[in-house]
Amino acid sequence: MWRASVLTIFPEMFPGSLGISLAGKALNAGLWSLQPIDIRAHATDRHGTVDDTPAGGGPGMVMKADVLSRALDSIPPDKNNSLRPRLLMSARGAPLTQKRVAALAQGDGAVIVCGRFEGVDERLIEARRLEEVSLGDFVLSGGEIAALALLDACVRLIPGVMGKEASGVEESFADGLLEYPQYTRPAVFEGLAIPDILTSGDHAKVAKWRHSEAERLTRERRPDLWAAYQARQKPQNGPKGST
Amino acid sequence: MWRASVLTIFPEMFPGSLGISLAGKALNAGLWSLQPIDIRAHATDRHGTVDDTPAGGGPGMVMKADVLSRALDSIPPDKNNSLRPRLLMSARGAPLTQKRVAALAQGDGAVIVCGRFEGVDERLIEARRLEEVSLGDFVLSGGEIAALALLDACVRLIPGVMGKEASGVEESFADGLLEYPQYTRPAVFEGLAIPDILTSGDHAKVAKWRHSEAERLTRERRPDLWAAYQARQKPQNGPKGST
Repeated sequence: MWRASVLTIFPEMFPGSLGISLAGKALNAGLWSLQPIDIRAHATDRHGTVDDTPAGGGPGMVMKADVLSRALDSIPPDKNNSLRPRLLMSARGAPLTQKRVAALAQGDGAVIVCGRFEGVDERLIEARRLEEVSLGDFVLSGGEIAALALLDACVRLIPGVMGKEASGVEESFADGLLEYPQYTRPAVFEGLAIPDILTSGDHAKVAKWRHSEAERLTRERRPDLWAAYQARQKPQNGPKGST
Repeated sequence: MWRASVLTIFPEMFPGSLGISLAGKALNAGLWSLQPIDIRAHATDRHGTVDDTPAGGGPGMVMKADVLSRALDSIPPDKNNSLRPRLLMSARGAPLTQKRVAALAQGDGAVIVCGRFEGVDERLIEARRLEEVSLGDFVLSGGEIAALALLDACVRLIPGVMGKEASGVEESFADGLLEYPQYTRPAVFEGLAIPDILTSGDHAKVAKWRHSEAERLTRERRPDLWAAYQARQKPQNGPKGST
């Protein structure tokens, strides 16, 4: 079973919104497990202190290495002596990608540290070899919501969570292109019709149109993804899948 | 008051995890409001159908334009005839940035559509001029957790939500650099000491060290941000803030 341990000062945020819908059903079905660990329970004083002022001055508070290490070390070792990846949700981290999500989903689970305040003592990050992961170039009030996003992304890839039909698809970033536009009934919505080609019944034409739309959207919206996509196509001399 | 309206088929996911901690306190204090709108309540049949099979075939389901437009149009117009930005959380969208977050936080709020299934009928996106926003290059089971992240990022910037001390700081992406490393007591953790310079009491040296560490981390971890940062420094002939 895929196991998530989440270190947080807000254990009541878990599963929270993730207890509902796809991930929640999978959690209830025992397809994955979620263990929130209250960092404050591992404080060394009776006030439950988890943070202190930054060395060198400045505003805000920094999460203490001694407390966080105790919380981390309280997690029992994994059965087969494997080590689950230890992630720190942090705006300084490597931007999360679908590739990393897929790799995590294929593993035994993850230990996720939710930062708060001005951050976490750097020595803890080094000593426990935390992998800093960022959702994107924006600042959250803490790592908790980011952890929910990471878990949602991973859980949907765990075998058995999505229906068979859906699981292979939606590889939005698997082929490096954005998704093509989708349409469904009604045939006409506020005067706008579904593109003829999609109702033509010609599967080859539909596939070609969708691929070229995916390429167009990627080119227009994400020059960065488009450049990477083109670089990958080069060795094959020509765009993949186009005829 | 900053107002968020969230269109979803899982209204019970809101505020959910966001009802706790900083955003939750601010919600209870009336610094912002959250209105979940159940898309299913706007279905046109007695089964509450919100999705249908994709035109042109393929797996999965597409959210119906007619139902979603009814849900959107059910939101009463804003008092001063202003229009809150209408966002669609979508992996196809523009990656969310702190700049966009700050702009949203300064406005009247946001209307957020949470996509599910294979996506939303393209005609609805066009007809209602939805702004597609993506958290990053990974796939979630739906837009709900992404909406929570967007809200958390926005709400912390609403005046009065963060303490005065904290609010000006943490501009992780404001100056285009990643955050410098932080340390706090104890002075020695597992044999690792806090860097001498931070305990020297020399504020100018501390500031210089932090800036150069922020530059180093950005250069090492995020060549993309580093290139953009350097390009911005050029007109001033030399790196900002260094001496």
